Amino acid sequence: MSDLPPDPFEQGLATYAEDLRAGRTTAEATTKTCLARIAALDPRLGAFQLVDGERALAAARAIDALLAAGTDLGPLMGVPIGMKDIIAVDGLPTTNGSLHPTEDLTGPEGTIVHRLKAAGCIIVGKTKTVEFALGATGVNEARGTPWNPWDAHSHRIPGGSSSGSAVATAAGLCGFALGTDTGGSVRIPACFNGLFGHKTTVGLWPTDGVFPLSPTLDSIGPLTRNAGDAALVHAVITGQDVPMSARLEGLRLGRPTSFFFEDLDEHVSATIEAALVALTAAGVEIIDVDIPEAVERATLFPSIVPPELIARLTPERFAKIRAEMDPMTALRAASGLEVSAVTHAAAQHRRVQLEAIADARFEGLDGWIAPTCPFVPMVIENLHRPEETQRALQSSRNTQPANIFGICAATLPIHQFGAPLPVGLQLMAPRGADARLLSMCLAIEPVLGTGAAPDLSSFQA
Amino acid sequence: MSDLPPDPFEQGLATYAEDLRAGRTTAEATTKTCLARIAALDPRLGAFQLVDGERALAAARAIDALLAAGTDLGPLMGVPIGMKDIIAVDGLPTTNGSLHPTEDLTGPEGTIVHRLKAAGCIIVGKTKTVEFALGATGVNEARGTPWNPWDAHSHRIPGGSSSGSAVATAAGLCGFALGTDTGGSVRIPACFNGLFGHKTTVGLWPTDGVFPLSPTLDSIGPLTRNAGDAALVHAVITGQDVPMSARLEGLRLGRPTSFFFEDLDEHVSATIEAALVALTAAGVEIIDVDIPEAVERATLFPSIVPPELIARLTPERFAKIRAEMDPMTALRAASGLEVSAVTHAAAQHRRVQLEAIADARFEGLDGWIAPTCPFVPMVIENLHRPEETQRALQSSRNTQPANIFGICAATLPIHQFGAPLPVGLQLMAPRGADARLLSMCLAIEPVLGTGAAPDLSSFQA
Repeated sequence: MSDLPPDPFEQGLATYAEDLRAGRTTAEATTKTCLARIAALDPRLGAFQLVDGERALAAARAIDALLAAGTDLGPLMGVPIGMKDIIAVDGLPTTNGSLHPTEDLTGPEGTIVHRLKAAGCIIVGKTKTVEFALGATGVNEARGTPWNPWDAHSHRIPGGSSSGSAVATAAGLCGFALGTDTGGSVRIPACFNGLFGHKTTVGLWPTDGVFPLSPTLDSIGPLTRNAGDAALVHAVITGQDVPMSARLEGLRLGRPTSFFFEDLDEHVSATIEAALVALTAAGVEIIDVDIPEAVERATLFPSIVPPELIARLTPERFAKIRAEMDPMTALRAASGLEVSAVTHAAAQHRRVQLEAIADARFEGLDGWIAPTCPFVPMVIENLHRPEETQRALQSSRNTQPANIFGICAATLPIHQFGAPLPVGLQLMAPRGADARLLSMCLAIEPVLGTGAAPDLSSFQA
Repeated sequence: MSDLPPDPFEQGLATYAEDLRAGRTTAEATTKTCLARIAALDPRLGAFQLVDGERALAAARAIDALLAAGTDLGPLMGVPIGMKDIIAVDGLPTTNGSLHPTEDLTGPEGTIVHRLKAAGCIIVGKTKTVEFALGATGVNEARGTPWNPWDAHSHRIPGGSSSGSAVATAAGLCGFALGTDTGGSVRIPACFNGLFGHKTTVGLWPTDGVFPLSPTLDSIGPLTRNAGDAALVHAVITGQDVPMSARLEGLRLGRPTSFFFEDLDEHVSATIEAALVALTAAGVEIIDVDIPEAVERATLFPSIVPPELIARLTPERFAKIRAEMDPMTALRAASGLEVSAVTHAAAQHRRVQLEAIADARFEGLDGWIAPTCPFVPMVIENLHRPEETQRALQSSRNTQPANIFGICAATLPIHQFGAPLPVGLQLMAPRGADARLLSMCLAIEPVLGTGAAPDLSSFQA
């Protein structure tokens, strides 16, 4: 236990970038550290579907040589990263979280992975995912459910579907990891693991080379230790300037008067109120905003996502693999067979209307603020209880609205306000305003502070 | 009969524009002529759902005053036009070709009508349409079927759904008319009336203020006497330069080896071959091209369009109005209730794939060439015969491929090559290449020549 090397990214990506250029570390040494931590912790955490150690080390040495030769690829150079296993990487298999081969649907390595490689990132492995990314708790009975590092005693839900990306980042197994968010799949695991997560506006980050859960709603986003790291990733991916911190004074954030603050557990409720008090004290204006359309997530999601998944799998293939699938995911997917084209088309039409409605509801506001998830991560073995099953279904309740509104959103950790387990504060911003969203997060983060990392001592192999 | 004033647009819009500025005519005189022709011919032709004579004359006088005051609104100034009655115009009712009120779905006057008004166009009336624009023959038992002006003896199909826009333009009742094209609804009536028709690339002309048949496939386009007129309209709508004639020599047009040239009637077959001989003689290269995906129009259309129509009407409203609807349109719409969301989503996915496939099939070619419709317009009273019903269903066979490929297309009249009734030559060009398509049509048109206008003497009231 004593020989576990410390998380090389505890101080964030910018500090690492400085250390690398100052010769205080190398990409090779850092990759070795990540691999050593994976070897020590991942047998119990189960964050990775596959670790690509040898190629990662070879790439790291090459990156070091490139930097030594005077080629600087920018702020993500030499960062070992985790890639959600619904995202194709040349030379590695993609399971899409399934026992059944579906790599043909994911396609070859896409734009985002190309860009990260071009920026000098080193892919250490593929991270676990809910099967076909369809599920919010992170449970995957087919391929295994990562262990939430915040509780060594009980196996709590890691959040999904980007479960492994969250656990790998929270446990310091990589510099950051990519996830995807169709209904909350970046934000929920980020929230449940005490991380920062960025759900990008649909269309901003190209989704080629990613398993197509729903072409209408799929987006890619990073899970990082803090907002500054996410800002660097976003700048590299989009080729734009790194977002700078916004002015805190006079920031106007809408607090939804209905839906988002209902039925919170006591930890979430107390923590979020304390966080909002801190923000108000720092000069942020918290203003009531009415967003009655948020409830429509409950009807639009089942009308859009399961049919689009089955359309890509084809009903024939789904019938063939259903028995091997995670039972909850299979049930959810099967519901898509019962939806009519008229309902699907009506949902699509409503979704386009909601984009315009969201614009109107943002008027006079810089963003909307809400709890990311309504409860702290629950214990998996309790999920068989009907009331816990019902509660688990609410994991994505507060994240899905951003998807149906077509906007962007981020989650910041706020368990430091007194919760025993991770709690997330969600900030939502207008469609395409991702850089502005990150600027606001950079301003808010110092007010909220960051909590301690999870205690990993009991996870060591 | 002898007092029927001649068609003021026989020489095209550019000549009219010159005459107007030279003081040889006025917008008021021209509008009066159009209204006189409507009064004389439309009782039998039935092209108009509604004529807005008084307002048109008042607008014409105002346009004349504006020009006299030195304000020149450009090449469409003072042109009386017809507007398909699924397109909203301030102050006029919109029937959408239905007995049932559905104006709420069409919405207020939209961008395209605004632009035409700003360009000095004068709307003389709303033209007849197939109910909800869902139908290719032009038959509308609810609101009436315009008479094809090419046969005074038998009531032949005018083509649809923009039936009235075609008949009004062919009969010289207006300078040009707007239609919409979801599966051929501009090109088919243009073809069957000896006109030029331009199906624009989806998204290029905004469709707000137009009845939403299918948000996926709806496009607006003009029906005009010739390519030059369409080029002027396109330039005014898009705010870009008027397309100039392309170089004929070396133009490479693909002739599909399957589908498009199958099962043509003898008139279409002979006429198109003669037209292609003329083009070849003029230096155009006609090259075989394989477009095997064209057949998919037969599966994709029923999966996309009827469900999208019912989604906007809602199944409840459709059930209520069905008995009052045109029976064929009602039957076609009802099929949308039987489609599953999975089939709809799969069709949408395939459509996106077909866009890329079309790009590939255009490689090395400037366009594809084919008959617009596989037969000349048939006699309506024969449509009750099962074999004629089957044949009528093929009206859109050659036009729907352009819609599912997401490309643009035009139809040019070629009956002058020896057909007793109108025949159209369809030219298809890549997505967004509308200006280039019009340039090619401008080059081709002088080679093909233009036939005589229909003899209207027997239609006069």
